Amino acid sequence: MTKFYTPLIIAIFLLFSCSTEKKTATPIVTTSIDYKKDSTQIKHIFNTALTKGKSYEWLRDLTTNIGSRLSGSEGAAKSVIWSEKLMKEVGLDSVWLQPVMVPHWVRGEKEVANYTFNGEKINVPVCALGGSIATPKEGITAEIIEVKSLEEAKSLGEKAKDKIVFFNGAFDNTLINTFRAYGGCVGQRYGGAATVGKFGAKAVIVRSMTNGIDDYPHTGSMGYGDIPKSEYIPTAAISSRAAENLSKHLKESPNLKFFFKQSCKTLPDAPSHNVVGEIKGSENPDKILVIGGHLDSWDLGDGAHDDGTGIVQSLEVAYLLKKNNIKPKNTIRIVFFMNEENGLRGATEYARLAKKHGELHIGALESDAGGHTPRGFSIDANEKNRKLLQSWKKLLAPYGLHDITAGGSGADIGPLKDDHVTLVGYRPDSQRYFDYHHAATDTFDKVNKRELELGSASMTSIVYLMDKYLYNNETLKP
Amino acid sequence: MTKFYTPLIIAIFLLFSCSTEKKTATPIVTTSIDYKKDSTQIKHIFNTALTKGKSYEWLRDLTTNIGSRLSGSEGAAKSVIWSEKLMKEVGLDSVWLQPVMVPHWVRGEKEVANYTFNGEKINVPVCALGGSIATPKEGITAEIIEVKSLEEAKSLGEKAKDKIVFFNGAFDNTLINTFRAYGGCVGQRYGGAATVGKFGAKAVIVRSMTNGIDDYPHTGSMGYGDIPKSEYIPTAAISSRAAENLSKHLKESPNLKFFFKQSCKTLPDAPSHNVVGEIKGSENPDKILVIGGHLDSWDLGDGAHDDGTGIVQSLEVAYLLKKNNIKPKNTIRIVFFMNEENGLRGATEYARLAKKHGELHIGALESDAGGHTPRGFSIDANEKNRKLLQSWKKLLAPYGLHDITAGGSGADIGPLKDDHVTLVGYRPDSQRYFDYHHAATDTFDKVNKRELELGSASMTSIVYLMDKYLYNNETLKP
Repeated sequence: MTKFYTPLIIAIFLLFSCSTEKKTATPIVTTSIDYKKDSTQIKHIFNTALTKGKSYEWLRDLTTNIGSRLSGSEGAAKSVIWSEKLMKEVGLDSVWLQPVMVPHWVRGEKEVANYTFNGEKINVPVCALGGSIATPKEGITAEIIEVKSLEEAKSLGEKAKDKIVFFNGAFDNTLINTFRAYGGCVGQRYGGAATVGKFGAKAVIVRSMTNGIDDYPHTGSMGYGDIPKSEYIPTAAISSRAAENLSKHLKESPNLKFFFKQSCKTLPDAPSHNVVGEIKGSENPDKILVIGGHLDSWDLGDGAHDDGTGIVQSLEVAYLLKKNNIKPKNTIRIVFFMNEENGLRGATEYARLAKKHGELHIGALESDAGGHTPRGFSIDANEKNRKLLQSWKKLLAPYGLHDITAGGSGADIGPLKDDHVTLVGYRPDSQRYFDYHHAATDTFDKVNKRELELGSASMTSIVYLMDKYLYNNETLKP
Repeated sequence: MTKFYTPLIIAIFLLFSCSTEKKTATPIVTTSIDYKKDSTQIKHIFNTALTKGKSYEWLRDLTTNIGSRLSGSEGAAKSVIWSEKLMKEVGLDSVWLQPVMVPHWVRGEKEVANYTFNGEKINVPVCALGGSIATPKEGITAEIIEVKSLEEAKSLGEKAKDKIVFFNGAFDNTLINTFRAYGGCVGQRYGGAATVGKFGAKAVIVRSMTNGIDDYPHTGSMGYGDIPKSEYIPTAAISSRAAENLSKHLKESPNLKFFFKQSCKTLPDAPSHNVVGEIKGSENPDKILVIGGHLDSWDLGDGAHDDGTGIVQSLEVAYLLKKNNIKPKNTIRIVFFMNEENGLRGATEYARLAKKHGELHIGALESDAGGHTPRGFSIDANEKNRKLLQSWKKLLAPYGLHDITAGGSGADIGPLKDDHVTLVGYRPDSQRYFDYHHAATDTFDKVNKRELELGSASMTSIVYLMDKYLYNNETLKP
C-alpha cells in the first residue's frame, strides 16, 4: 500500500473495517441493566422522535435553503451560521465555534468529456475529483489504457505513457454491506493519479464508486501524496454506465481517443469552523460523550445523506434527551465537524484541542453512513465496554437494531481513539447509500422522514445507555 | 366488529397479526441442519441474485410496458399473458392458467373535490375507493361531520343525516411496524360507508392510509357488506394533507360545504386467471410448496411495490433454484394470484381447487409487503415447524433477516391454512411502504435493485431450507 493515500485508508478502516471480535476466554460481562426502566425510557425516546421529531424539517431547511457545503464554499460558511443558531434554539447549555483552516478546492466550469465510436460522438457524464488539478484549457485528448485495480495500474510502466489511464474496477456486488464494496474500489479513485503519474500518463478517469449502473458521475477526494508536482495529472470520475460502454467500445476500437476538459483548482486554505454545543453533565461534567457528523458535503447534490442526516440526527439526540427530561450524568457534546470529505481538518483540530486541554472523552458516536432505516452500531472499544454495549441487544432489537458488532466507528471521531474511549458508528441499512453518494442525486427527496427519525432515536437510546452504564470510572485514566 | 368487512379483517390478520408465540413447556426443536453446507448454499443463492438477478428488469418491463393491473382491466389481462410467457422462459416444468371470475370495478372520470374556506376555493386531491358507487352526475355537496374512528361513527345516529362523514383517524406513528398502524386505521376505509349509510349520511370521505403528510389520495377497497342497496353511499379517499387542512378549517367554519364528484361503477364480473407454474419435486412430487404474490394492482400507480415486487421475486425463486442447480425434493409451485386487492377471488379459487383435487400443500410463502430491504419472515405454522424455521436464524441473520417471528403470512396463501401447512410471509422493512401504497406514487422508480434482489434471495433461501427440512412426513396427514 503506497504511502500517499494512507489517510483515506485509515478513514475507510475506521468507518467500516471488518469485525475484529477477539475469541478470548474472558467471561462475558454480566451487566445489571434495569431492563424495565430502560426499555420504557427507550420506548419514550422513539415515541417522541416519531411524533415530535425535528430532524426532517431541519434537514429540509439545510439542504433546500443552503444546499451543498464543500469546505471553503459560501454554502459551508452559511451552514456554520445556521448550525450555531439552531444549536442555540435547541437550548444547549453552551454553543461555540472552533476555528479551523480548510482546503479550498473549486470545481470551476462544468466538465466535458466525449469520444467518437463508429462515427458517433459519445458524450460522457464526467466530473473532476476533489483535489485534482485542471486539464490544459483546450482539454486533454489521448488514447486510453484500461485497468481494473490499483494493483494492476502499479505495473503499467511505459504502457501508460501519454495515455489516459481508465480505472474500471467495479463494486463487488455480492458483499451485503455496500461499504465493503466501496472499500475494495475507492483506492482507484484516491490513489489512481499518484500511481500512474510517474509513468508519464496524461490523465486518469475512474469509474464512479457506486453499486449500480447509472448516468451520474460520483465525485470524491483524490490525493497526490508526496509525489513531485511535475507528476500531478488531472483526474475525473465518469458515470458507471459510461464506464461500461467505454470498456465495450475499447474492445472493438482500442485506439479510440478520449477527450476531457476540467478547470478545477485548489485555492489557498480558507478559514472555517467546527460547530460545538453541549449539555453539561449533572454528575461528571468533565467526562464527555461526543455525538456528531460532518457539516461539509460534496458540491454536486445538496449533501442530504452525506452527511446532512448525520448532522440533524446528532442535534436531535440533544433535543430528544431534553424533551424526555433525561439529565445526563456526563457532558453530552454535539459536534458538527468541518471538512470530513477532503481533509479531515475539523476532526483533527477537534482532537488536538481536546488533548491540549486535557479533556476526558469517555465515548463518541458518529452518524455518517446515510439516513436509511436502522440496522445497528459498530463498536471500536476495549473488550469490556464492547461486551457491555452488545449486552444491550435485547433493549435495541425491537427497533431493528440487531447488528451490534465490533468494527470501525467514523472518520471524524477516529482521531479521539485511545485505549479507553468507546467509539461507536451508527449503522443504517447500506443498500441505497451508494446510489446517491457524492453524486448530484444526493438530495433531500431521497431521505425518508421515519427512517431519519428512527435513526435519531436509535442514537439517543445508545447515548442514554452509554451515559448511564459505560465503564469509565474503572477503565479510564484518572 | 360488524359482519361486512370480515374478509378484510381476516386478510389483515393473516398479513400482520401480532406475534402469537405460545409460552409452553415444549422443548426447543433440536434440528440437525448441515450448517456448513447450508450456509455455503445460501451464500451462492445471494451471490447469484446480486450478480445475475432478473427480477429488476422483469419488474421494469411489467410496470413500464403494462402498468397498472386492476382486476378486469386491460392491464390485468395483458399481465396474465406476460406472466405465462415469462414463466415458460424461466424454464418451469409446467405452466398453466387457472380461470377465475373477478369483480370489475372501473374508476371512470378523474374525481373532483373542493370546498370554500374564508372565500378561497380549496381543491382537494381525491379518489374513489374501490367498490364504491358513483355520486350523482352533479356531484354531492353537503356539510361535514368529522370522526376519528369507526367506533365513533357507529354512534353518530341522526347527527350523520344528510352529512358527508369524514373519517380522519390517522396512523399511530409510534408503531415501528407500519402495517400495525395500517391495521389500526383501515377499518374506516373498508367499513365507513356501511357503518353510516343507515343513518342517512350522503357520502363518506376518508383520510388516506399513509404514515406521512402528502398530497396523494391513496385508494383501496371498501365494501357494503350485507346492507340494503338503498343505504349504499359514495366513498372516496382524500390526501392526508387535505385531511389535516379540512379538519383545521372545520374548527373555524363547522358548516362549510364540501363538494365531490366521482363516476366509478361496478360492471359484471370479468373472466381472469391465476398464473401457475412449477418445478416438479424429485422425491415427493405430490407435496407442494407454493411461492407467490398477487398479479393485480390498484389503478393509480403502476403497482410496483404492491405487488409487482412480490410477483418478480416469486418467479426469481424458481430462477435462482435452477441457476444454482438445486433440485427440490418437493414440488415448487409459483403462483401469481389474481384479485387480491378487491375480492381475493384468485386465492379463494386456488385453495378450492387444491382441496378439490386433494393436493397436499406442505408450505407456502408470500411476498406482499413491498420490495424494500429484507428484515425477516412471519410464520403461521404448528409449533414444531415454527421452531424449526426459527432455528435457522443463524443461517439467515448475515443477510439482515433477524425477525423470524410467529404471525400472519399473506392474504393469498391464507385460504390454504390448515393444521399442518407452514405458511410464511416475507417481511421486508416497512418504513417506506405506506408512502406509496395504493397511490399514484407506487411506481418502478421507488424500487431499489439490490433490495429487490436481496428479497428474492431471502425467499429462495428459506424455500431451500423448507424443502429440505420441513417436518411434513411426521406431521401431515397421509
